[in-house]
Amino acid sequence: MLMSNDEVTGRAPATARSRGNVLDPHLDRYAARTAGMTASEIRALFAVASRPEVVSLAGGMPNLAALPLDTLSTQVARIIAEDGLTALQYASAHGLPLLREQICDVMALEGITAHPDDVVVTVGSQMGLDLVTRLFCDPGDVVVAEGPSYVGALGSFAAYQAQVVHVAMDEHGLVPEGLRAALRQARIAGQRVKLLYTIPNFHNPAGVTLAVERRAEILEICRTYDVLVVEDNPYGLLGFEGQTYPALRSLDPDNVVYLGSFSKTFASGLRVGWVLAPHGVREKLVLATESATLCPPTLNQMIVSRYLSTHDWQGQIKLLRESYRERRDAMLSALEQYLPPGCTWTEPDGGFYVWLTVPEGVDTKAILPRAVAAGVAYASGTGFYADGSGSRQLRLSYCYPTPERTREGVRRLAAVLESETDPARAFDGMGSRQLRIPAPRTR
Amino acid sequence: MLMSNDEVTGRAPATARSRGNVLDPHLDRYAARTAGMTASEIRALFAVASRPEVVSLAGGMPNLAALPLDTLSTQVARIIAEDGLTALQYASAHGLPLLREQICDVMALEGITAHPDDVVVTVGSQMGLDLVTRLFCDPGDVVVAEGPSYVGALGSFAAYQAQVVHVAMDEHGLVPEGLRAALRQARIAGQRVKLLYTIPNFHNPAGVTLAVERRAEILEICRTYDVLVVEDNPYGLLGFEGQTYPALRSLDPDNVVYLGSFSKTFASGLRVGWVLAPHGVREKLVLATESATLCPPTLNQMIVSRYLSTHDWQGQIKLLRESYRERRDAMLSALEQYLPPGCTWTEPDGGFYVWLTVPEGVDTKAILPRAVAAGVAYASGTGFYADGSGSRQLRLSYCYPTPERTREGVRRLAAVLESETDPARAFDGMGSRQLRIPAPRTR
Repeated sequence: MLMSNDEVTGRAPATARSRGNVLDPHLDRYAARTAGMTASEIRALFAVASRPEVVSLAGGMPNLAALPLDTLSTQVARIIAEDGLTALQYASAHGLPLLREQICDVMALEGITAHPDDVVVTVGSQMGLDLVTRLFCDPGDVVVAEGPSYVGALGSFAAYQAQVVHVAMDEHGLVPEGLRAALRQARIAGQRVKLLYTIPNFHNPAGVTLAVERRAEILEICRTYDVLVVEDNPYGLLGFEGQTYPALRSLDPDNVVYLGSFSKTFASGLRVGWVLAPHGVREKLVLATESATLCPPTLNQMIVSRYLSTHDWQGQIKLLRESYRERRDAMLSALEQYLPPGCTWTEPDGGFYVWLTVPEGVDTKAILPRAVAAGVAYASGTGFYADGSGSRQLRLSYCYPTPERTREGVRRLAAVLESETDPARAFDGMGSRQLRIPAPRTR
Repeated sequence: MLMSNDEVTGRAPATARSRGNVLDPHLDRYAARTAGMTASEIRALFAVASRPEVVSLAGGMPNLAALPLDTLSTQVARIIAEDGLTALQYASAHGLPLLREQICDVMALEGITAHPDDVVVTVGSQMGLDLVTRLFCDPGDVVVAEGPSYVGALGSFAAYQAQVVHVAMDEHGLVPEGLRAALRQARIAGQRVKLLYTIPNFHNPAGVTLAVERRAEILEICRTYDVLVVEDNPYGLLGFEGQTYPALRSLDPDNVVYLGSFSKTFASGLRVGWVLAPHGVREKLVLATESATLCPPTLNQMIVSRYLSTHDWQGQIKLLRESYRERRDAMLSALEQYLPPGCTWTEPDGGFYVWLTVPEGVDTKAILPRAVAAGVAYASGTGFYADGSGSRQLRLSYCYPTPERTREGVRRLAAVLESETDPARAFDGMGSRQLRIPAPRTR
């Protein structure tokens, strides 16, 4: 005798519902903006990265190993013991005054002159980005961004129903002529372009840096088309030769909103970032911060402030740069050594990432499960585009694993790519190694 | 000879601008939602509260004096020294698993049975509220809320362009018949009511608690009208007799989103709160969290988790309750002793606030500057309504000042009110004290 599912489980049959569905009865209640919220790659990657047998070249977790944990431990203990009633209490939404002054000193390293009043402390620069989007983007407004662009930014733009138009980069970063063409086209189409979102230095995920001689031109184009520039600069102090570039904000203070972060230069888990904005925008940002979180965590701001005032933080950044350079070198040499022909990649001179293009016919999202099964994870390219591009690209990060692990990860990835590009070899794992020409690199 | 302003200052005349205005050239660029962002009362109050000569009965800052700072200092030092690479690193947007389990234990005190998977850790419950609004409210959607309601909630609703419809409370909290009428009327008007936002316990700012026998009825009304309930419960464990009430969430798990916070029971400056949501909603919340902040601060979650697992946190809450009860008593006796006739107020049996109605003809917002000049600050009533009501009301908090300061603050407030209600006395500060009937109280 056949039994219904409900009889088998002994549960009462589900009653008919007037709305939603059985999986989520609230389905008809959500705001329209939730349609753009899809399970993010970041999240999936965290899960994968946590499996110890997998070499994760996927995440963007900074290397904290060089942090002076004992000193920090003592300092934080003192903050709580001596200033606990302040550190554990609400504070202003604007951010602690001393920290905002210190942030101005940090930004001065990239040529920025700013008043602490115009700095707003945020819960990581992600929150800054989210709130700037909130302030400027009505549904349907356009944000122009590099293609590829930071996955977390695309998430924020989607959450506010902004449309993203990608502009190509080359080895010198965003291409001014491409930007001009995109803005011209948007104007003809009657679209309202609100923001240029750009990561000028050591781009995530592309690994390239906007050439200095392009910077003024890009700012001029944005002024011509009445577009506000959002400069996202978490990696600017992580140039491997200690080089820095003039911030876009330093060249056009009135038309650039600058996003900064201590996540890559100090400690990501504290979630302390900031926005430097023109005066009127800054006032609205403080209001937006209040309705988002009331205020950023006080203790965390005090920890960063104490660290900046008592520790040789620039020396610490130098250590970080050196460790990332060593890791970058390990990745590049492994790519050179192991990757099959037909692959190209960028060679970053700072930051965390290499952007890899695989041979035609290989879909990086489709083969990710195979890569994970082979013990390596990466971020497939489509996550970095709002328009479905990127299926032949992937992002590799060298920031977190040791150089040895990175080499091993690239070796595993190469094996997967090799079996994908040569179908015969997929069934012949023992095949002899073919001679290969060094892969061309995008420079 | 007359000189123009520019000649006097020696500055070049301002050039004509194609957009915005001189104060904020970005004015034409903002999203429509910014129209609802106005300088918040919270912010103005922080500035006032920081002047030492003013007794601030305005803010909602918890009393941290009883916190075991030395123990905390040692614990946090240990977290950083031993677990720093985790504490200072990114983590999942969902929140640390152990903390989410412990949060379920905290909620069990108010009758909630929940799975840790359905808890999302947020940067204070303010962020939970902001993200829940983001998930559910399209512009023009209606949120029904008590009148008065929490000022920070009104800010979030405005940021998402939701309309707020207030429903009256009496001494037993939200009036079911008023809720039913409001929902019926909204339906007739073709409005889409998405949420009931309610603070059932020790209401901010009203100081009243929703009667237990009304709870099922209110949930039933919301089901009937297909409205999701958002239960905001930061004060639930701060009943002065140790009493707790069944959470709305415990009575209707599928149709209530619950917001919790450690700001009032542990440390507001850590900004750790949470949302307990039905499964499908929780998944979307995690996505929304990612685009808002990537993840809540890891260190802060570990501090709360360690505190809950090593400290007698329930004993600590008992201490807090006792200190707040003493402060509440000081405020009520001072109100009784000093206030002029024609004032009425609520008598809270938990939480932080008394809601005061002043005699007809007195505008609490208009006289606030005079009160501050007389050395006392409060939150005027209009900030707690989206519709301009509340000009005869004000909120007094007894949570932060000592009982002596509270008494002094009420004495100063009474003098201001007395001079406002008796115009003759405004010019006769030395007038003899009139005999007064004890003020009627709303109970």
